[in-house]
Amino acid sequence: MQLKKDYLTVRKRTEDICAPLKTEDYVVQPVVDVSPPKWHMGHTTWFFETFILIPNAKGYTEFDPQYNFVFNSYYESVGARVIRTDRGNLSRPAVEDIIRYRRHVDEAMQTFLETPPTPELEALITLGLNHEEQHQELLYTDIKYILGHNPLFPAYDPAKTSPVTTKTAGSWLEMKAGTYEIGFPGNGFCFDNELGRHKVYLGDYSISDTLVTNAEYLDFIQAGGYRDFRHWHAEGWDWVKKNEVTMPMYWYNINGQWMHYNWQGLQPLLPDAPLCHISFYEAAAFAAWKGMRLPTEFEWEAAAPQLSWGQRWEWTESAYLPYPGFTKAPGAIGEYNGKFMVNQMVLRGGSEVTPPHHSRITYRNFFHPSLRWQFTGIRLAK
Amino acid sequence: MQLKKDYLTVRKRTEDICAPLKTEDYVVQPVVDVSPPKWHMGHTTWFFETFILIPNAKGYTEFDPQYNFVFNSYYESVGARVIRTDRGNLSRPAVEDIIRYRRHVDEAMQTFLETPPTPELEALITLGLNHEEQHQELLYTDIKYILGHNPLFPAYDPAKTSPVTTKTAGSWLEMKAGTYEIGFPGNGFCFDNELGRHKVYLGDYSISDTLVTNAEYLDFIQAGGYRDFRHWHAEGWDWVKKNEVTMPMYWYNINGQWMHYNWQGLQPLLPDAPLCHISFYEAAAFAAWKGMRLPTEFEWEAAAPQLSWGQRWEWTESAYLPYPGFTKAPGAIGEYNGKFMVNQMVLRGGSEVTPPHHSRITYRNFFHPSLRWQFTGIRLAK
Amino acid sequence: MQLKKDYLTVRKRTEDICAPLKTEDYVVQPVVDVSPPKWHMGHTTWFFETFILIPNAKGYTEFDPQYNFVFNSYYESVGARVIRTDRGNLSRPAVEDIIRYRRHVDEAMQTFLETPPTPELEALITLGLNHEEQHQELLYTDIKYILGHNPLFPAYDPAKTSPVTTKTAGSWLEMKAGTYEIGFPGNGFCFDNELGRHKVYLGDYSISDTLVTNAEYLDFIQAGGYRDFRHWHAEGWDWVKKNEVTMPMYWYNINGQWMHYNWQGLQPLLPDAPLCHISFYEAAAFAAWKGMRLPTEFEWEAAAPQLSWGQRWEWTESAYLPYPGFTKAPGAIGEYNGKFMVNQMVLRGGSEVTPPHHSRITYRNFFHPSLRWQFTGIRLAK
Amino acid sequence: MQLKKDYLTVRKRTEDICAPLKTEDYVVQPVVDVSPPKWHMGHTTWFFETFILIPNAKGYTEFDPQYNFVFNSYYESVGARVIRTDRGNLSRPAVEDIIRYRRHVDEAMQTFLETPPTPELEALITLGLNHEEQHQELLYTDIKYILGHNPLFPAYDPAKTSPVTTKTAGSWLEMKAGTYEIGFPGNGFCFDNELGRHKVYLGDYSISDTLVTNAEYLDFIQAGGYRDFRHWHAEGWDWVKKNEVTMPMYWYNINGQWMHYNWQGLQPLLPDAPLCHISFYEAAAFAAWKGMRLPTEFEWEAAAPQLSWGQRWEWTESAYLPYPGFTKAPGAIGEYNGKFMVNQMVLRGGSEVTPPHHSRITYRNFFHPSLRWQFTGIRLAK
Repeated sequence: MQLKKDYLTVRKRTEDICAPLKTEDYVVQPVVDVSPPKWHMGHTTWFFETFILIPNAKGYTEFDPQYNFVFNSYYESVGARVIRTDRGNLSRPAVEDIIRYRRHVDEAMQTFLETPPTPELEALITLGLNHEEQHQELLYTDIKYILGHNPLFPAYDPAKTSPVTTKTAGSWLEMKAGTYEIGFPGNGFCFDNELGRHKVYLGDYSISDTLVTNAEYLDFIQAGGYRDFRHWHAEGWDWVKKNEVTMPMYWYNINGQWMHYNWQGLQPLLPDAPLCHISFYEAAAFAAWKGMRLPTEFEWEAAAPQLSWGQRWEWTESAYLPYPGFTKAPGAIGEYNGKFMVNQMVLRGGSEVTPPHHSRITYRNFFHPSLRWQFTGIRLAK
Repeated sequence: MQLKKDYLTVRKRTEDICAPLKTEDYVVQPVVDVSPPKWHMGHTTWFFETFILIPNAKGYTEFDPQYNFVFNSYYESVGARVIRTDRGNLSRPAVEDIIRYRRHVDEAMQTFLETPPTPELEALITLGLNHEEQHQELLYTDIKYILGHNPLFPAYDPAKTSPVTTKTAGSWLEMKAGTYEIGFPGNGFCFDNELGRHKVYLGDYSISDTLVTNAEYLDFIQAGGYRDFRHWHAEGWDWVKKNEVTMPMYWYNINGQWMHYNWQGLQPLLPDAPLCHISFYEAAAFAAWKGMRLPTEFEWEAAAPQLSWGQRWEWTESAYLPYPGFTKAPGAIGEYNGKFMVNQMVLRGGSEVTPPHHSRITYRNFFHPSLRWQFTGIRLAK
Repeated sequence: MQLKKDYLTVRKRTEDICAPLKTEDYVVQPVVDVSPPKWHMGHTTWFFETFILIPNAKGYTEFDPQYNFVFNSYYESVGARVIRTDRGNLSRPAVEDIIRYRRHVDEAMQTFLETPPTPELEALITLGLNHEEQHQELLYTDIKYILGHNPLFPAYDPAKTSPVTTKTAGSWLEMKAGTYEIGFPGNGFCFDNELGRHKVYLGDYSISDTLVTNAEYLDFIQAGGYRDFRHWHAEGWDWVKKNEVTMPMYWYNINGQWMHYNWQGLQPLLPDAPLCHISFYEAAAFAAWKGMRLPTEFEWEAAAPQLSWGQRWEWTESAYLPYPGFTKAPGAIGEYNGKFMVNQMVLRGGSEVTPPHHSRITYRNFFHPSLRWQFTGIRLAK
Repeated sequence: MQLKKDYLTVRKRTEDICAPLKTEDYVVQPVVDVSPPKWHMGHTTWFFETFILIPNAKGYTEFDPQYNFVFNSYYESVGARVIRTDRGNLSRPAVEDIIRYRRHVDEAMQTFLETPPTPELEALITLGLNHEEQHQELLYTDIKYILGHNPLFPAYDPAKTSPVTTKTAGSWLEMKAGTYEIGFPGNGFCFDNELGRHKVYLGDYSISDTLVTNAEYLDFIQAGGYRDFRHWHAEGWDWVKKNEVTMPMYWYNINGQWMHYNWQGLQPLLPDAPLCHISFYEAAAFAAWKGMRLPTEFEWEAAAPQLSWGQRWEWTESAYLPYPGFTKAPGAIGEYNGKFMVNQMVLRGGSEVTPPHHSRITYRNFFHPSLRWQFTGIRLAK
């Protein structure tokens, strides 16, 4: 059965991502946005236990009733939870306990899937797998943060390269004014925030066919971009000054040479690679300095079939808001997306750490404008 | 000359608003968003001195060179400034000094306006007058905050009533799907954020012809609306819990009777009056509890000619973002609006403390979603 | 009657101190340790109303029952109180209301004092007068802070000079080892923290007959004293770095010239005047840099009869702790001193703003080690 | 050689303490005062590498030059250091790396000790061993904190009991007034803060021969001791309210039964055991409620030869200040104690986790008055 096969594939991929880690790397939480890898491993498992097995699998024995408290992330509907800033204080459950927890749930899920589930349950399991894929991307970003902020700069995997290449000469796609259809059109899986396909009127616009490169962004730095308030939102300028930001996350200027931290440790910066790890504020300031702007998420989606993409999550000029007719599902699943629809910006595309086939043209990623630990980049519009 | 007449009218109105105050009321800043009334009086004057008189009026003598430091609000282009949280620490300049400053600038402006200014300068003076009108509204909201958060609950003016009335039975305006023109169409004055008139496609929608009343909001409170996370954005729910919010600002339940602070002091709450002083989070939670939503700013503008309005600033579901083709003016004036276009929500309409003829159908007000000291209310859509 | 005469003298002196202020100066609270002058005027009055008139004066009519809430400082026993950080948010009661409050209480006290009070009440009134004298010193220090941190640097009184002079050549008093009697010996008024006269054994020590001058402290600055952690307590070094401290409070180096703010506004620094407005951390670091130390409060008291003193509050090396046999009075008066006996350092002496005859050899002043807005200085020991 | 034997004994004991831990337990830092166990293991090793081997052992090869940055605790003299709040963010060096670091240094130290060191070096090595013993006590207290604040309440060692017993009936030791000698008298090892043996005059006093028990403290709780401000220092009362403190650390009232976390996990509270894990504020409030007080450190030391002690670190009424004639050693070693002599209270005695023979009658322990994670208790005086 395809669902069972998908289940096993996705679950295994989580463990593959963690394979290069030392036990200690699973535990720490250097900032509130980063979760310990062992927490991701437990939380994705908790989803299947809580929403599939406990209510539906006859005779299922809960692994440990206290795990609901430890691994609930933000679902207010499902009991108390460890606050996010406390996750890095928990040395237990140990990694080996969580591995046993995964085995326990995986075995029960395999048994459960021997009988074809109802369409509602199939949809919920599919949501659980997409949810785990989202945490796979977070595993990569959080592991990079944990290792890349350690003064020893350990490599994640000395053999792993960033598979990105980029066209070095930009070209512009000219888009005609008109009414476009936006939102998920099909029958397969999508998140609730993509639903409500609807018309959006767009004027004429141009959108770049390439992403901004490290070299282009270095020009901005060297032109004093971080010291001139005129390019910045007021809130962005406060952010620059308060945090003394002068370059993207993971960049270092060591004795005049530009370096960045990557999977192999500290490496010389590649000028032609697409820029990565910048905040919305930096993206908007760079665009303003170029006399251009970021595309809206609607402009992006309308042009996407003609663009090459998938290397970076691209900041758009759109705030994360509900589409017309957006409704929340009842119960805990309804908490998935809608409650975050304020004070976040939409990102479109995907990145080198997005699981294969996870993203799509209508996919809406979203983060607070100050965050940089995701694989974020810039596409210009005008 | 009309401009000179307008100048004198606007400038006098600022002083009329402050007339009921005691000297002490001009000085305090109870929270960072509220500025001391004497600061508003100085800052609006500083605008004309800095942008009109010093660069254009021959022989003009600056009143006091240190005032640029004290009364600059946020213009990074025009030198250093007192940070916002420090304004309430400044006992000097005294109110009488600021009155003299106003006289000095007003006399110079009257002399200056004896000769018709260039169109550019006329536009800048008109901007200065609209800017002062915005601060007149802030004077009212800040004075209400200062007096309404004093344990003695002093009246602002025992004779001043809130002139609001409301239709008690709501009716719904049905709007047809189609492409609407949004943004300032005309020739007169508008702010830069209204420019870039453009087409927006809207689906069918219904919008209420009345504002939510105090009685309707009491139903929400009494139904446990502040205790049920399901109605709230995640960020809104954190705000409710952290601040222990259980009712709108200025409401009090004293021995079982609902009261609110108003111009005349503590008064019994009027059930049929339009709800006031709520955050975006509360507006969105109330709408969710009703199974409805807030209108977008585009839906609002398209329907506005058929709505009665002007009693409250109405929270919309739209984030404050640039219109297509938005450009900032060069220099300090360019800092007026664009740099705030992140993490704020749009409000439309106007309120009992908006100066006459100041607002218009295309006017875009904006505040952070947590703020409540403005005269904010709710109009529902579905 | 002497008590009535003393009452009128002390009460008048409070108003004399405030006479040079503008109304606005009475209102602000720039930092939590500074109280608005109008608060001091009300609080000292509240003491007599609450502890003398209401419980003892037949037929006395409370001026305003809400004033107990506004003017209670820290007495937990006497109902709720405005938290210290909120005092500067209160524009009302207005200064003129507080003046009326003072008149009301003063008249009632004069009537009350026409009959000789019981010894207990006489002691309590004497405590109230000493309490008001303490607030007179705070009025001076708080007014200096309010005006001295205003960017216009207004003078308090252009005719008021600091009456300090100093011997420029230091001499050392040699003290012999032995057992000394410490604590208040006599019959007159003292605070509870001076009681419990007891023996203290002291070894041989030397104590300076002069205070450290501005010129001597400049040597410390110019020798890099603020940049060398070795002179500092760990906590002091954190304080220096966090607050970027490089000189005493009210000092400025303007284009290479050393200035300080004083009663007459910004003035050139006097090299021979005794150093003022330094924290315990700075005092201890200076002493360490000199290879010396601060005296203990016991060494100070034993030597005091042979010292000239009274120009500065002198930081000692003693923490503020109870004397043997210390007991708290029952009720609110018992909250006077004992509850502060942790994490504060003792200061001895007096200053140019201490009321005449207020301090004495056994007087124990105390402040947190980081505070500098009092008139604090340094006497060395070895 | 005795020193070599002592070296091996002390070093082994550190590893024995950590033996029951899982790898994950070595990594976390739940609050700033607690350090990760692996940090303690590295830091104690770094002491010997930095102060003994690198400057004195010919041919010694530094294990990893970056470890100086990672494992320096607070010595400003010895280069940059990881700030204390960041220690729990470091997943590397891994535990196995730190074990290799210990082996590397231990082997070099053994070789080095084959030749008898100079008296200066012997003193420094002895200081290093006493330093490691202090960290052994911290290892116990930090491990207890890490496990005892985990929602799973894992046992440290199911076989380990608290070896404490207590006399249940208190008796009082009467001490006569007179001059006593205080401070380290002998020739062996002591810390610099014990030096400067000097005379202190003490009046008559009584000191309890037993420590306060859990049952006695329960009486205080049940009498409302945490709700009556009159027993508390002002700072202590703020601490109680801000942190909502209602019982000692590690105590829980579960469905009416009093439990505490101990080495074996959650256990019923033993009424006759000596009270543990209370702050100075709680100790002082309990004493005030009893109408008694805490002893000074001098009273404690004078009575100590006649007391049974060693079960708890006993809060005294003395602030941590230098003894007469205290001087700091030059260089990094001089940072050991003196720089902490402000805003801390002295504790005397020792505890169940103090290494054997580590403490002595003149030993001065010290902590901030709010801290409770040490094994602190109460002895009364009057």
